[in-house]
Amino acid sequence: MTTGPIMGSEKVYLEVEDPDFGRTLRVPQRRVGLSNGSHIDLYDTSGPYTDAASSTTIDVHAGLARTREAWINDRTPVNGAVTQLAYAKAGVITPEMRFIAAREGMDPDFVRSEVAIGRAVIPANRRHPESEPMIIGKNFLVKINANIGNSAVTSSVAEEVEKMVWASRWGADTIMDLSTGKRIHETREWILRNSPVPVGTVPIYQALEKVNGDPAELTWEIYRDTIIEQAEQGVDYMTVHAGVLLRYVPLTAKRVTGIVSRGGSIMAAWCLAHHKESFLYTHYEELCEIFREYDITFSLGDGLRPGSIADANDEAQFAELRTLGELTHIAREHDVQVMIEGPGHVPLHKIAENVRLEEELCGEAPFYTLGPLATDIAPGYDHITSAIGAAQIAWHGTAMLCYVTPKEHLGLPNRDDVKTGVITYKLAAHSADLAKGHPRAQEWDDTLSQARFEFRWQDQFHLALDPETAQSFHDETLPAEPAKTAHFCSMCGPKFCSMKITQDVRKYAEENGLSTVEAIEKGMQDKSEEFADQGKRVYLPITD
Amino acid sequence: MTTGPIMGSEKVYLEVEDPDFGRTLRVPQRRVGLSNGSHIDLYDTSGPYTDAASSTTIDVHAGLARTREAWINDRTPVNGAVTQLAYAKAGVITPEMRFIAAREGMDPDFVRSEVAIGRAVIPANRRHPESEPMIIGKNFLVKINANIGNSAVTSSVAEEVEKMVWASRWGADTIMDLSTGKRIHETREWILRNSPVPVGTVPIYQALEKVNGDPAELTWEIYRDTIIEQAEQGVDYMTVHAGVLLRYVPLTAKRVTGIVSRGGSIMAAWCLAHHKESFLYTHYEELCEIFREYDITFSLGDGLRPGSIADANDEAQFAELRTLGELTHIAREHDVQVMIEGPGHVPLHKIAENVRLEEELCGEAPFYTLGPLATDIAPGYDHITSAIGAAQIAWHGTAMLCYVTPKEHLGLPNRDDVKTGVITYKLAAHSADLAKGHPRAQEWDDTLSQARFEFRWQDQFHLALDPETAQSFHDETLPAEPAKTAHFCSMCGPKFCSMKITQDVRKYAEENGLSTVEAIEKGMQDKSEEFADQGKRVYLPITD
Repeated sequence: MTTGPIMGSEKVYLEVEDPDFGRTLRVPQRRVGLSNGSHIDLYDTSGPYTDAASSTTIDVHAGLARTREAWINDRTPVNGAVTQLAYAKAGVITPEMRFIAAREGMDPDFVRSEVAIGRAVIPANRRHPESEPMIIGKNFLVKINANIGNSAVTSSVAEEVEKMVWASRWGADTIMDLSTGKRIHETREWILRNSPVPVGTVPIYQALEKVNGDPAELTWEIYRDTIIEQAEQGVDYMTVHAGVLLRYVPLTAKRVTGIVSRGGSIMAAWCLAHHKESFLYTHYEELCEIFREYDITFSLGDGLRPGSIADANDEAQFAELRTLGELTHIAREHDVQVMIEGPGHVPLHKIAENVRLEEELCGEAPFYTLGPLATDIAPGYDHITSAIGAAQIAWHGTAMLCYVTPKEHLGLPNRDDVKTGVITYKLAAHSADLAKGHPRAQEWDDTLSQARFEFRWQDQFHLALDPETAQSFHDETLPAEPAKTAHFCSMCGPKFCSMKITQDVRKYAEENGLSTVEAIEKGMQDKSEEFADQGKRVYLPITD
Repeated sequence: MTTGPIMGSEKVYLEVEDPDFGRTLRVPQRRVGLSNGSHIDLYDTSGPYTDAASSTTIDVHAGLARTREAWINDRTPVNGAVTQLAYAKAGVITPEMRFIAAREGMDPDFVRSEVAIGRAVIPANRRHPESEPMIIGKNFLVKINANIGNSAVTSSVAEEVEKMVWASRWGADTIMDLSTGKRIHETREWILRNSPVPVGTVPIYQALEKVNGDPAELTWEIYRDTIIEQAEQGVDYMTVHAGVLLRYVPLTAKRVTGIVSRGGSIMAAWCLAHHKESFLYTHYEELCEIFREYDITFSLGDGLRPGSIADANDEAQFAELRTLGELTHIAREHDVQVMIEGPGHVPLHKIAENVRLEEELCGEAPFYTLGPLATDIAPGYDHITSAIGAAQIAWHGTAMLCYVTPKEHLGLPNRDDVKTGVITYKLAAHSADLAKGHPRAQEWDDTLSQARFEFRWQDQFHLALDPETAQSFHDETLPAEPAKTAHFCSMCGPKFCSMKITQDVRKYAEENGLSTVEAIEKGMQDKSEEFADQGKRVYLPITD
């Protein structure tokens, strides 16, 4: 497995007192130390794997420390429920909420109140005590999910565990195990015991394996047993396509790309084969009971999401969304947390409508979208076409973005693709954090830009989302050590470096005992008559 | 040089009659033939290099055919001017306009009228008769520019010509030669004689070389002579930082990243050194006279554009924009075409304001922006951070996007970086075309998505912006020939393929002599009482 600190960073822990439960919580942060003696602490999803002090002793067979176990055992159910939602409604600030508040730089009671009204969820199965609590909601940092999982065609268990470590190293806030091949149970067990981030699944995939791939053979009992099996293992959230109703299937008949959700197409096939309503829908309240017992979060799947620009925002999509709204309210009555999955493929001008409708119909449950891709014409670059849509939809309020890799529509992502997908989605999510004015977002940009302006090349690399790539791109043109401190870069050379010139101007002013503004003001004053004579131009007052 | 058709495409020519000048114009298109016998014709920037019939006979020493020469020689000046703007105002539809109308699928007189009011420009120096006419304006397809050019540090003339061919092959609508090193004149000459797309420059770079890199030594005369030298060679548009006024420089003093435009910093340094107003500003009308003679388009540079999120939309930036507005109107009085350069680094929520102000202050002159980057934290991925901003700003009305490569801020782009930058910007531009509802935009997406749904893998590759990458990504997992026709892909395998299931459903219906909708309707009718009994759910009427 990949362990050790990210280049230029170290793991530090905020120590947070929890007066209600009498504990000290240790909240991880990624600290980037700078050459000017300062530092910045960044949100850190990577778990113990990047902690130099402990990463060497991680035993993948033993799994990570079960930190939350004591928290869970200590507390008594509220109205028979052990969910974060039940506690939040009852006014209890759980250790998870306090941990999250420190991580996000928010007030603990604000975290509680957002969970209480269902505008945020904390996916944390009580059987996954290894996880570091995190929150998904529009008033917090935008989160990203990375899909991993073996398929019928390729890959192995060890590879999938390493993909989880790898994805969370680069910033995945949750991972989804979408395995569809052999050893689904075993793969998931290894991932869960070693995952510091919440793990999601789409249980219908495993259920379908149990009936040898024939959707018509699926039954509620087989599905329910699969849910319980995964719940016991500790899956934190599950995608359930309970909104694919029989009567919606015809709405997809004239689409350019029909049904593109795997789960959606399986349920549509089942409904048609039996001419009955989906068992996910008819047994939904039983599902809620199971989810409540473990505190599993619903991720209500958009089985009828558009798979092309042509199909975006159509009747099939929005009919299903209305049903997801109904299901959201039912789950909440059971004290079960809910988020709503969203598209898919949507052109830029139709994105805002998706968020508006989701919030209206689903009581502001966190929206969790796959991209969306803003065009269909660029297979091989769909991490980018989707990042364009993802940044846009997250700005409008989507709480979590499911990543898309360069291999989307073409093949299975390899290790590099997973990293590219994660970094691309981190930058899209951060762009939205900036646009939403998250109080801690811009400090990162400003710190990096200041380093850039001052030619602190190493600081610039270390502050980058992907320090290794930033440095290697720089070194491709100018590998020698002096270039790391050069006051210009390979793009412009010394004569044309705009930042160098700007700095020279500032230096000139300082050497003359003046601030830059004063230096220029003085010079302008000397020449003021010249300017006055040119009266035909607008004169702007100088601000300070 | 790279020649020959793009994989899966052939060059075809629309033959367009020009009744006014008695000629037949040949307008190139990229035709993608599909395995189902149909085809789609796409906008094509790649010139004769991708024409199988002629590309083998191209002689780089002789240059491309001077097709426009006869057009230019045939016509008489209007009011002493030979510019497209002068003709447009006089009601003349030039062959360039007619060529463009066919290329864009627009009415020729609409092209003329957009040019006449200055909302679109046709950069076409009469000394660059090798170029294929194109238009930049918000009511046309969004265009992209690729920067090439040697630097003081690396690269050669042959490399730069190949970069031009390479960039236009993948879709660059214009290229800018930003050479700053040795042999600037010679490099530019080779590029121009072989370029099917308009070429832009930033003449201050060459002027600065002539004074050995000391901005204080620049003079109007040196600059003017450089302009004329480049005009004679055929440069189609020139970036002029005439809006960087002495009094604006102090406005940048407290910025995080000061002045980041090279041209802007050079002019700021000159202004401060002399405590005089910029010679670009004081001699602006003389510049207009020279530009008019050749029909060079002004690209009024944003020398004070923000270089970081922190500096976006500040007073320095918008003060300069107001001055660019003044200069726009002066140029138009001289019948000279104008576009306006824009930022830079701007968070998503501040992007729309840039377009609004530019249109208001600069009389809707085409906006030509560099990205903008939506965050600063991802060096190594700035093609993506900027594509997010670029798609957004183009949707709001930016007419041309200057590409950014993965090497931005770090080093000089190589061949792969140029391609990545161009493809990334094509997909951003196309996303905006879709969002703006350009009449011909969505056909491309729909054709590709239809191919995807029908598992026509080769068609999907050929329709991709980058067919080679799409195919190689597919072949990484499933290289064997049968996979090219498989009705599933490596992502899901045969059991889980949603499109396969959807198709099975449709096939089932067809085999039973029913359309899908009818099949399902019939089934539902049989079961209608069951549904009626479940009255608590919303029932949606089935549409057809």
